Amino acid sequence: MNQVYQENIQVGEVANGLPLTIPVYRIKGNGTGPKVYIQANMHGAEVQGNAVIYQLLEQLKQQPLTADITLVPYANPIGCNQKSGEFTLGRFDPITGVNWNRMYHNHDALIEHFVEQHLESPISDIKQQFHALLVEKTQNLLNGPAHSINTGKRIALNLQRLAHNADIVLDLHTGPISAQHLYCPEYAQSSASYFDIPHTLLIPNEFDGALDEASFCPWWGLSDAFKARGREIPILVEAFTVELGSQEKIDLAQAAEDAQGILSYLTHKEVLLNSPYKPKPMKRFACMLKDYKAYYAPMGGMVEYSAELGAHLKAGEPIAYILRMERYLAEEPLHTLTIEQDAIAILHFASASVNQGTELYKFFTHYFEL
Amino acid sequence: MNQVYQENIQVGEVANGLPLTIPVYRIKGNGTGPKVYIQANMHGAEVQGNAVIYQLLEQLKQQPLTADITLVPYANPIGCNQKSGEFTLGRFDPITGVNWNRMYHNHDALIEHFVEQHLESPISDIKQQFHALLVEKTQNLLNGPAHSINTGKRIALNLQRLAHNADIVLDLHTGPISAQHLYCPEYAQSSASYFDIPHTLLIPNEFDGALDEASFCPWWGLSDAFKARGREIPILVEAFTVELGSQEKIDLAQAAEDAQGILSYLTHKEVLLNSPYKPKPMKRFACMLKDYKAYYAPMGGMVEYSAELGAHLKAGEPIAYILRMERYLAEEPLHTLTIEQDAIAILHFASASVNQGTELYKFFTHYFEL
Amino acid sequence: MNQVYQENIQVGEVANGLPLTIPVYRIKGNGTGPKVYIQANMHGAEVQGNAVIYQLLEQLKQQPLTADITLVPYANPIGCNQKSGEFTLGRFDPITGVNWNRMYHNHDALIEHFVEQHLESPISDIKQQFHALLVEKTQNLLNGPAHSINTGKRIALNLQRLAHNADIVLDLHTGPISAQHLYCPEYAQSSASYFDIPHTLLIPNEFDGALDEASFCPWWGLSDAFKARGREIPILVEAFTVELGSQEKIDLAQAAEDAQGILSYLTHKEVLLNSPYKPKPMKRFACMLKDYKAYYAPMGGMVEYSAELGAHLKAGEPIAYILRMERYLAEEPLHTLTIEQDAIAILHFASASVNQGTELYKFFTHYFEL
Amino acid sequence: MNQVYQENIQVGEVANGLPLTIPVYRIKGNGTGPKVYIQANMHGAEVQGNAVIYQLLEQLKQQPLTADITLVPYANPIGCNQKSGEFTLGRFDPITGVNWNRMYHNHDALIEHFVEQHLESPISDIKQQFHALLVEKTQNLLNGPAHSINTGKRIALNLQRLAHNADIVLDLHTGPISAQHLYCPEYAQSSASYFDIPHTLLIPNEFDGALDEASFCPWWGLSDAFKARGREIPILVEAFTVELGSQEKIDLAQAAEDAQGILSYLTHKEVLLNSPYKPKPMKRFACMLKDYKAYYAPMGGMVEYSAELGAHLKAGEPIAYILRMERYLAEEPLHTLTIEQDAIAILHFASASVNQGTELYKFFTHYFEL
Repeated sequence: MNQVYQENIQVGEVANGLPLTIPVYRIKGNGTGPKVYIQANMHGAEVQGNAVIYQLLEQLKQQPLTADITLVPYANPIGCNQKSGEFTLGRFDPITGVNWNRMYHNHDALIEHFVEQHLESPISDIKQQFHALLVEKTQNLLNGPAHSINTGKRIALNLQRLAHNADIVLDLHTGPISAQHLYCPEYAQSSASYFDIPHTLLIPNEFDGALDEASFCPWWGLSDAFKARGREIPILVEAFTVELGSQEKIDLAQAAEDAQGILSYLTHKEVLLNSPYKPKPMKRFACMLKDYKAYYAPMGGMVEYSAELGAHLKAGEPIAYILRMERYLAEEPLHTLTIEQDAIAILHFASASVNQGTELYKFFTHYFEL
Repeated sequence: MNQVYQENIQVGEVANGLPLTIPVYRIKGNGTGPKVYIQANMHGAEVQGNAVIYQLLEQLKQQPLTADITLVPYANPIGCNQKSGEFTLGRFDPITGVNWNRMYHNHDALIEHFVEQHLESPISDIKQQFHALLVEKTQNLLNGPAHSINTGKRIALNLQRLAHNADIVLDLHTGPISAQHLYCPEYAQSSASYFDIPHTLLIPNEFDGALDEASFCPWWGLSDAFKARGREIPILVEAFTVELGSQEKIDLAQAAEDAQGILSYLTHKEVLLNSPYKPKPMKRFACMLKDYKAYYAPMGGMVEYSAELGAHLKAGEPIAYILRMERYLAEEPLHTLTIEQDAIAILHFASASVNQGTELYKFFTHYFEL
Repeated sequence: MNQVYQENIQVGEVANGLPLTIPVYRIKGNGTGPKVYIQANMHGAEVQGNAVIYQLLEQLKQQPLTADITLVPYANPIGCNQKSGEFTLGRFDPITGVNWNRMYHNHDALIEHFVEQHLESPISDIKQQFHALLVEKTQNLLNGPAHSINTGKRIALNLQRLAHNADIVLDLHTGPISAQHLYCPEYAQSSASYFDIPHTLLIPNEFDGALDEASFCPWWGLSDAFKARGREIPILVEAFTVELGSQEKIDLAQAAEDAQGILSYLTHKEVLLNSPYKPKPMKRFACMLKDYKAYYAPMGGMVEYSAELGAHLKAGEPIAYILRMERYLAEEPLHTLTIEQDAIAILHFASASVNQGTELYKFFTHYFEL
Repeated sequence: MNQVYQENIQVGEVANGLPLTIPVYRIKGNGTGPKVYIQANMHGAEVQGNAVIYQLLEQLKQQPLTADITLVPYANPIGCNQKSGEFTLGRFDPITGVNWNRMYHNHDALIEHFVEQHLESPISDIKQQFHALLVEKTQNLLNGPAHSINTGKRIALNLQRLAHNADIVLDLHTGPISAQHLYCPEYAQSSASYFDIPHTLLIPNEFDGALDEASFCPWWGLSDAFKARGREIPILVEAFTVELGSQEKIDLAQAAEDAQGILSYLTHKEVLLNSPYKPKPMKRFACMLKDYKAYYAPMGGMVEYSAELGAHLKAGEPIAYILRMERYLAEEPLHTLTIEQDAIAILHFASASVNQGTELYKFFTHYFEL
C-alpha cells in the first residue's frame, strides 16, 4: 500500500482576498521509471477527470511503482467555480475571454543555447538538466514582479512548473457532448494504442498555448535541434490531452474504466511493476490535426443532432435537423444538414439553440486505422 | 386542410434598435368549441416546445376544428437568444435576474366589480364578457406610458393578451434534466389523465406570476366570488404548464409523441371533430404542490446523479454521490446522498458541479395515483 | 485604544470544495449602550461599504464605546467574486437569478406566541429575550438538514444570526450610478437626520426579504402586537440600508466622510462616549416608498443621462437623450425624454445601452423636507 | 446638402431565426478624393462611436465631398445587445470567448502573385485592382459553404468587404475607463497629428485579426513586396483604431468634438472641399506598441485608481491603493501600488474588484512627443 501525500499550492487570490488553492497529490515510486504528471478540470465544466484521478488514486495506492506520480484535480479554481445559470462557464477567463488552456508558456527559446552546451552530454544528463532548466525558468517567471503576470498565466505557470518535472504528462479534458478522443503528438503515435480510446488526433510540433504542447514542444524541438547538429536523440517526454467524453458529467463507473486505460498506458511505459492493466482490444482510428474539421451552423435555428458520436458517416449522410419556426409558412421549416465527405463524428455543441455560425460538430476526415 | 395564418407581433426593442418580434400562428375552427392558446420557449433553454408546436401544426392542418387555435413558438426573443458559454441563459432577465415566467399580470382585482355587475347574467355572457374584460385590461396596461413597463412585463403582457382570448391555455416548458410532468390547477385534476404525462403537480389558486396562473386564477377567483354570493358557476378556463422533459434538446420524434398527448387532451375538450387521438394507457401519479420538495446539495462538490428520473424511490435509497477531491486524505472523498422519504425523482440539476445549497433534485412526496 | 477581534465564519462551500468564509470584526464596549451590527458588499459590485468599514475601524479603535460593534465586510463571498466581463455580476445568484438581498428569513410568525408569554414582562426582559429568540430560531434553521437550505439562504441566515444580536443594524449598499440615499423605516424618521445623507426613503412594515426588513420587521410587529393587547412599547431596534453612491468604485476619502455620517448617527444613539462626531448641516429630503418611481426606457437605444443625480427636477424637464441610429433617415434619431412630475433624480442605470423597458432612473416624487 | 443613403446588410441569424442586420449609411462625393469607411461599436460596450457617427453625418450632410463616405454604426449586432447584469458583455463572443475584433481575415497571401502581375502597372491601376481583389476575395469567403464560417467571422467579413473599398478606414472603439488614444500604423505617423487625440500608439506591420490591421497590412505588405523587387510605391491605404474614451457612455457634446477631430484628419486627406475643420493645437505623445505596458494586480482586492488618465507619471509615483479587509489584523490592509518607470496612464480597469492578475492599467512608456 503506497502512501499518498497532499500539498495545497496557492495559484491566485480573488477580490475579497480569499486564496485560490489547488490540491496536489503525490505517490512515490522506486525512482527507476518515468515520472508522471496528471491534471484535470482546467476547463471548469470538464469535471470527469477529477473522478478519473479519484479512481487512479484508488488503484495506484495498491501498485508498486517505478516513479513518482503527481495528480492534480481541480486544476483551475476560478473556472471550476464559475457559474452562469446552471452551466459552468469555465472554458475561458470570464473577464477577458481568453481560453484557460492557451496560457502556458512557450520555452522554445531555451533550446538553442541548451543544445550548444550539451552537444556531447549523455542522454541521462540532457534529460535531467533540461527538466531542471524548464522547471527553473518557469519558476523564474513566477518569481518576477507580481504585476507582470495575469490571472490565467499565474495558474498555468504553477501547473506547468509541476508538469515540467515529469516525463509523462496527461491533461484530462472533455468535449462538450463528445466521444472519447486523444490528442497525441505525431511522434508518440505508437503509444496511442495503449489507451482505451478509439479516436486519436495526431498533432504537429506547433505551440498554441496548451499544456500538452507546453510539455512536449520543448523536447520535440530539442530532438530536432540535436538532429540539426547531427546527433539523434529520442524525444524524451510524452504528453497527451485526454478527452474523456462529455462535460458537466460525473460517472464513477466510467471513470474506473477511464482509469484502466490510463493505467494500461502507464504499464506500457513501465511506470507500474507487475501491473495487471492491459489495453482493451478495439479498433482505433486516427486523423491528422489538419483534417479535424469544424462544421458551423449554416443558419440560425433549433438543432436535433442526429449523427451518433463515434459513428463512421458516409458522404451525403444526414447529421442534423434544423427547425426554424419563424417562417413556418414562408419556407420549409425543417432543414436537413448532411456531411460532404466520409467522416467520424467526434463531438457536437451542447445546446440545441444555435446562431448562424455556431460550431455544430467536429469531424475526423481522411481518417485511418491506427 | 386548414389554412395556417401567421402574424408577427413586436414585443420590444433592443439597444441597437432592432425590434423583438414573435411569430403567432393561427388555425381557425367552426366556432363551436373552446378556443386554445399554446406557447413555447418562454425560458430560453426550454426549446422542445417549439418542436411540439411544429408537430401540432402538422397535425392540426389536417383536422376539422371546433375553435380557433393560436400557437406561439419562441415566445421570448431575448431569453431564446441569450448565450453564456454554450448554455442558453434564458431563465431570467440577464440584467435584473427576474424569472421571465414571473412577470404576468394578476387581474384578481377585477373580480369583485365584475361579479357585482353579472350576478344574474347567463354563463355565456359571463364567459364572453370576462374574457373581453381581461383582454381589454391587459391591452390598457400595454397602452399606458411606455416608461411604466419593464422589458419582461412588456413581453409577458403581449402574450397574456393573446392567452386571455382562450378557454384553454398551454404553456410549454421543460425542466433542467427532467421527467415529463404537468402543472395542473386542482380543479382540473380530471383533465390531467388525458395528457400522456405520468406525473402531475396539483396547484392551488395562488398567483405567483406564471402564465398558467395568470390564465386560470381570475376564473377560479370568479367562480369562488359567485359562490360567495350563493351562485355556483364552473371554472370556465383551463390552463396548464406542460414540462416536456429536459432543456437544451430538440427531439422531433419525441415532439410528435408530445403533440399526440396534447391532441388527446384537446380531443377530450372537444376541440377536434372526429379526432383519432386518445390518451395512452399508463399509470399517472400526482402530488400536491406543497409536497413537491427541493433537495439542495448538503456540501459543495462534483455530483453523480444516480436516481432514475420517474423512479419511485423508497426512504433511505441513494440518489447521488458527491465526490470531493479537496480533502481526499483528510476525509472520505465520496459521499452517498439518500432520500429521507418515499418519493418520485422528477428532475435534477443540469451540471455536475454544485455549490453547497445548489438545488440538486425535485421530488414528488406523498404522491398518489390519479 | 480598543482591541479589534477577528473571527472567520464559514457560510458555504463551492464546487471544488473550497470553503466560503467571511471575516467578522468585533470591538467591545462597556455594555451600557445599544449593540451595533454593520455589514457591507452583500451585492458583489457594491464595494464602497468595505472601505467605509475600514474607515470605521480606524476611528472606532480610538473611541470609548458603550456597546459591542460587529463589522462584516465582504458579506457575500460568491457575489463579491463573480465576474462577467469587467463587471462584478453579484446582484443575484448567477444560477437562479434570485437577488442575494431577498433571502433573509421572516420571523413574524414568532411574535404572537412571544407576546402572549410576555404581556407583563419588563421592557428589558422583552428586549433581551426576543433578541435571544430571534438568534436561536435563526440558528435552528442553520442546524436543520443541510439539504433543506439553498446557497443564498445559508449566507443570509449566517449574517442574520449576527444581526439579530444587535439593536442597530446598518446594511451598506450602493446604487448603480447613484446619489447617496437611506432606506429608513417610517418609525425611525427622526434618526435619518443624523446621517450625512440628503435623501431618505421611508419604508413601511412590509417584509420583502432584505436585511433591514428582517432586522426591524419583527420588532415593529412586536410593538404592534403589544399595542393590540393594550400595551405601548417602543420599537426596540433600528435598521437601515445605507446607499453610499455608485457601484464598482472605491474612494477612500469619500469613505472617511461616509464613516463620519455613520459615527454621527451612532453618537446620537449613544454608542460612543465623548464623541466628536456631529451631523453635517444640510437640507435632507424624504419620500415614501410608494412614491419612489422607476422610469423605464420607452424605446431601445443608446442613452445619454442628462439629469444630475440629486437634482430637483421640474415637471417637463429633460432627463435623458436616446440616440437611435438604426433609422437615422426614417425617423428622428435623437429623442429627448422628460420627467412628468416634480422629482429628485436618485440613481440611473450603469450602461448607455438599453432595451425597451430597462430601468433608466429612479426618482423621489412627492418628496418633502425632513 | 448631401443626400444620405441607407442600406441594411444582414450579417447573421440568431437561434429564433431573427436576422442580424447592420445599418450602412453612405454619402457621395465627386469621385476625386480617397474613399472613407468608418465603423463603430464592434465591441458591445464601446458605444460612443455611434454618437460620433451621428455627429459626423450631421456635419457631412453639409460639406462638399471629394469621395464617397460609408458610415456603419452598431457594427456588431450580437455584441451590442449582449447584457450580463447591467454591463454590456460585448468584447468577445459569449459562446467561444473570442474577441470580436480578432476575426478579420488576413489577405497577405494575395500579395506575391499580385505583385508579379503588376510589376510595371501604374500606381492608379495597382490601387484600383488591389482594392478590387481584396473585395472579391473577401466576398468569395462569404460565398463559400455556409458551414465553413463561424459567427464572428461572418460579421467581420461583411464589414471587411465594405472597408476594403476604402482608402481610409477608421474603426471607432473605446477603452474601459480611458483617455483618448489612437492606434496608428508606423508609416502613417504624420497623419496622427491631425486627429485631436493626445496619445498615439505606433503599431508595426503585424496581423493580429483587428480591422485596422486587416485594412492596412495588405497594402503595407504590397509596398514592401514592390520594394523587394526594386520598385518604390507608397502605402496606399491608411487605417486607424480610434479609442474615444470610456465604454458604456454616450456624450453627445463630446461626440461633436470627437467628430471635429476626425473631420480635421479627413480635411488633411482632402476628403472635404473648403473644409472649416482644423486640428486643435495640443501636445501629442506617442509610444511604440512594444512599449505599451499592462500592469496586472499584484494581489486580489478592492482598488482605488488614483492615477489620472493622461497624466505623465514619474517612476515611483503611486497609481492605486488596494484595500484588503480579509486580514485587517494580520497584515497592512491598505497597499499602495507605484509605477516603476516614467509613464503616461492611458486606461484602467472598469471595476474596483480585482483578482490577482487582473489588468489594472495600461501605460505608455518610453513615450515621445509627436
